[in-house]
Amino acid sequence: MDPDALAKAFVQHYYSTFDANRAGLANLYQDSSMLTFEGQKTQGAQNIVAKLTGLPFQQCLHSIQTVDCQPSGPGGGMLVFVSGQIQLAGEQHALKFSQMFHLMPTPQGSFYVQNDIFRLNYA
Amino acid sequence: MDPDALAKAFVQHYYSTFDANRAGLANLYQDSSMLTFEGQKTQGAQNIVAKLTGLPFQQCLHSIQTVDCQPSGPGGGMLVFVSGQIQLAGEQHALKFSQMFHLMPTPQGSFYVQNDIFRLNYA
Repeated sequence: MDPDALAKAFVQHYYSTFDANRAGLANLYQDSSMLTFEGQKTQGAQNIVAKLTGLPFQQCLHSIQTVDCQPSGPGGGMLVFVSGQIQLAGEQHALKFSQMFHLMPTPQGSFYVQNDIFRLNYA
Repeated sequence: MDPDALAKAFVQHYYSTFDANRAGLANLYQDSSMLTFEGQKTQGAQNIVAKLTGLPFQQCLHSIQTVDCQPSGPGGGMLVFVSGQIQLAGEQHALKFSQMFHLMPTPQGSFYVQNDIFRLNYA
């Protein structure tokens, strides 16, 4: 699969899961995975999903503006860089965000999220 | 050196070099380095610096708002995620941007930029 198509498919899957069933994101992380969310660091699939499901909003809708990707090196990883907007339920204005993922291959031929860094841009 | 301190030092060095002497950034890239600048892909130190020095503005000033970093995996690399503003000479408003770097260690104990993805956020 072409890397750009793979990155877009991942991004589509990630944010639709986030918006519909945040707990379902657990499948995308492993124990070594790291999340930095607005400067707060979390490690491990379970802690990361606890962080994401505990965010102080129930419903949200991501819309993606750009997706860039590059191979990260000899380990077969892929860097995915996203910009977009997140609309929180009950809020008038959407918030701009940017986020990067470092995807690493699994033995099963799939990918998991090794690194995840998220920032709001406060537009 | 503590990774957060190293990331901040790199970011300081990168943007002060960009603002004062863009051609001097050549030292930070290698032949394998990749840049995606607003969706346009470039590879190799020489091509990357040609791209950066050829951007349609002469003077600019970056100001950094956030710097996040995480180790990228067993190769000893480091992911650095930056958000900030860039003020172009002669323009009234600064532009928001976000950028990610994947730094890899050199045999000399320094780091070079293996991956670089830049996006304006059009605030």
